[in-house]
Amino acid sequence: MARNHMILSAFFFNPQGDHRMSWRHPRAPGREVLGFDYYRELVQAAERARIDTIFVADHVSIWDSVKSGVAHYANARLEPLTLLSALAGVTRHIGLITTASSSYSEPYNVARLFASLDHISQGRASWNVVTSAMDEEARNFGRDGNIEHAFRYQRAAEFLDIVKGLWDSWEDEALLFDKDSGYFADPDKVHVLDHRGTHFKVRGPLNVPRPPQGHPLIVQAGSSEDGKNFATAHADAHFAIYSTREDGIKYREDINERLARHGRRPESFNILPGILPIVAASEAEARDRQDYLQTLLPDRVGIDLLSSWSGIDLSAYPPDGPLPQLPDESTFNGGRTSLNRVRQWATQNLTLREIARKLANSGSVPTVAGTPKQIADQLQDWFEAGAADGFNLMFPLLPEDWVNFAEQVVPELQRRGAFPTEYAPGTLRDRFGVARPANRFAEQRANQRAVS
Amino acid sequence: MARNHMILSAFFFNPQGDHRMSWRHPRAPGREVLGFDYYRELVQAAERARIDTIFVADHVSIWDSVKSGVAHYANARLEPLTLLSALAGVTRHIGLITTASSSYSEPYNVARLFASLDHISQGRASWNVVTSAMDEEARNFGRDGNIEHAFRYQRAAEFLDIVKGLWDSWEDEALLFDKDSGYFADPDKVHVLDHRGTHFKVRGPLNVPRPPQGHPLIVQAGSSEDGKNFATAHADAHFAIYSTREDGIKYREDINERLARHGRRPESFNILPGILPIVAASEAEARDRQDYLQTLLPDRVGIDLLSSWSGIDLSAYPPDGPLPQLPDESTFNGGRTSLNRVRQWATQNLTLREIARKLANSGSVPTVAGTPKQIADQLQDWFEAGAADGFNLMFPLLPEDWVNFAEQVVPELQRRGAFPTEYAPGTLRDRFGVARPANRFAEQRANQRAVS
Repeated sequence: MARNHMILSAFFFNPQGDHRMSWRHPRAPGREVLGFDYYRELVQAAERARIDTIFVADHVSIWDSVKSGVAHYANARLEPLTLLSALAGVTRHIGLITTASSSYSEPYNVARLFASLDHISQGRASWNVVTSAMDEEARNFGRDGNIEHAFRYQRAAEFLDIVKGLWDSWEDEALLFDKDSGYFADPDKVHVLDHRGTHFKVRGPLNVPRPPQGHPLIVQAGSSEDGKNFATAHADAHFAIYSTREDGIKYREDINERLARHGRRPESFNILPGILPIVAASEAEARDRQDYLQTLLPDRVGIDLLSSWSGIDLSAYPPDGPLPQLPDESTFNGGRTSLNRVRQWATQNLTLREIARKLANSGSVPTVAGTPKQIADQLQDWFEAGAADGFNLMFPLLPEDWVNFAEQVVPELQRRGAFPTEYAPGTLRDRFGVARPANRFAEQRANQRAVS
Repeated sequence: MARNHMILSAFFFNPQGDHRMSWRHPRAPGREVLGFDYYRELVQAAERARIDTIFVADHVSIWDSVKSGVAHYANARLEPLTLLSALAGVTRHIGLITTASSSYSEPYNVARLFASLDHISQGRASWNVVTSAMDEEARNFGRDGNIEHAFRYQRAAEFLDIVKGLWDSWEDEALLFDKDSGYFADPDKVHVLDHRGTHFKVRGPLNVPRPPQGHPLIVQAGSSEDGKNFATAHADAHFAIYSTREDGIKYREDINERLARHGRRPESFNILPGILPIVAASEAEARDRQDYLQTLLPDRVGIDLLSSWSGIDLSAYPPDGPLPQLPDESTFNGGRTSLNRVRQWATQNLTLREIARKLANSGSVPTVAGTPKQIADQLQDWFEAGAADGFNLMFPLLPEDWVNFAEQVVPELQRRGAFPTEYAPGTLRDRFGVARPANRFAEQRANQRAVS
């Protein structure tokens, strides 16, 4: 890749960390996760380390199809667009990525929220487009169950096309603020979209001027076929899941082929695999910390999670028996990335309880545990081998794993020249090395002028 | 009223001020209205003066059914929920009111956004419920035109009931954070709403815990029959429009009757009439400033606005002729408050151009212009007569009219004991003197226990 340094993105979904029982850890935060100060301190620690972005994941439901979800699993939390907007006001450089659902929002509203966040943050907003796979989500929005997988992605493509069109509806030079003439805007540079598609009808123009980035950075995070095709057609960055450097190199080759089909070059697209970093004084200490987190998981939560990922109600199966036959991916309507994780373990002759424990505890991504030097070695190795453009850092326990990484691993990477010591000027797109998109309406007008 | 001091709310829709051509004023801001610093300074000036709230109004479209809307009228701006969230992070006391549309959003999304803003701001969020009256808005959300008036309000009532139910879906004591037992929440105190109504089907629970205020303060701003009935059934505060103290006293009597029908007491409901304050060294200077603003309005914008408010395309009528017959209110589908403003002028034998100029320049609310002492006199007079619980301050020109009011009128009110010199502790509800709502699910459980 053309990048001369890796991208680091600090992730959370649960505010206590990516291990789903991290909230039980003695050093995990309590009620302060409902207030703003907790997040301000986290993001300011990341910004001091020059970390490129934070990424706050999201669902539009709680996981309550099983009772253990509500009882034991920390998934009540703040809404991320309000949270990131508040954080935009107290930071200057760090990128602000969050999720919004193309299945359960209106394109006009999503376009406005991200355009406005991009203005407020001076070009630091990024939208992780998700299609929402949970039945619990569908039921909060007038449906009885999840929308069919391929259909969700078709709809997402149309949704994203509308949002990009709305961001273009004001050309960059449309606003004049010409007090003498009374022209606030040049009407020739403000455009009606008049989208009439399969799933949506949206007129436009947007009522927020074009964002500083042109389009806020587009991120996509699903590794299914539909997900990868969507990402390579529409996104600027991709959160991926793979376990080895070799898998990463193959993943990049596969992605490059897909990009080529859309006439895109590899460097227009950044792949950030998720990793679970545990910084410790030694490998043994790192392992102890992982083992301790595993003790926090009630068996029942593990089995309920496995039910959720596999699409099979496992509560009636003997926990020390085998996993029943899994559904076929091609007709599976839930999250296919999760289903495939289950499938990988199903072949290993483990009991249901053992699979549940391993899966629920391991998280979906590889652990990178050890001393700052060991962690930096691995990140640098993957980056230099072309297995990653950077990393989505999914810390098991917050705030300490986040702060330890920022204060110990980042300086080690900086000493090696593998990570910058200052933020480069410009927008988040500039930092990701992806171009500011041309404006479709300005291009149309230029073409018309060329013809006439 | 039981209140011992007035409520002051600082308003804007256009970031340059409430006079719609204020953006042309030599001292109006330019491109800085697209950045955050401009708003931070405004809100911090208000907070230094102990002003109770800011209120950012909103539409989900630009006014572009006429070309002069785009060309001359400043209605491209930031989205208010992102803006208020960013402001929440840099303020400590001031209330944060904004508009969200019950016609063009999903109840689950609106419930989350305001609940989260209420957590981030520690109990300072407030939702101004609007039904959205513009055809331009409808066309951004899959429709060909505006939704019928009464239907919009029925839908809004159902929407608000769902949102309140979602805010209640986590009881106040539902979150346990009990690290020892592994109980994050008490499942008996987390509730499925399972709403199945005429317009919506929403399961719940919300994924944001109950807001600090229980329910963020509910505001409503329409003065139509439907609007006043909706407000007195569902809201805690009401932005009203009337021109004299006597009208205000009558308005309060009318509202009190409506409140009584819902079993509510007058003090549970605050009426804040809009006023347009112009602080100056003398009445003559105040008038000069108003006159100057009027010179900024192109005739064409005035007539286009009049078309928009009256529901009649007036561009073909002679500007120096009379206004044609106005539509009947009871079947009018647009904003009825605006139609009635037009009607008031239509009886006065003025030309179309004259009516347009007066209406477009006057704003919808009475001007209170003069020295700080004169303005304080009038506010105090209305408040003490029971004609207002406070005021929605619609400054013609920002930032200066806002800052002048904060720095000159507020101290005058404070000297008189008519306005506090410090923020009282507590939430925005506490400051408005309205109770924290009981939780409907906790009440149901208490009733079940009483029966069994």
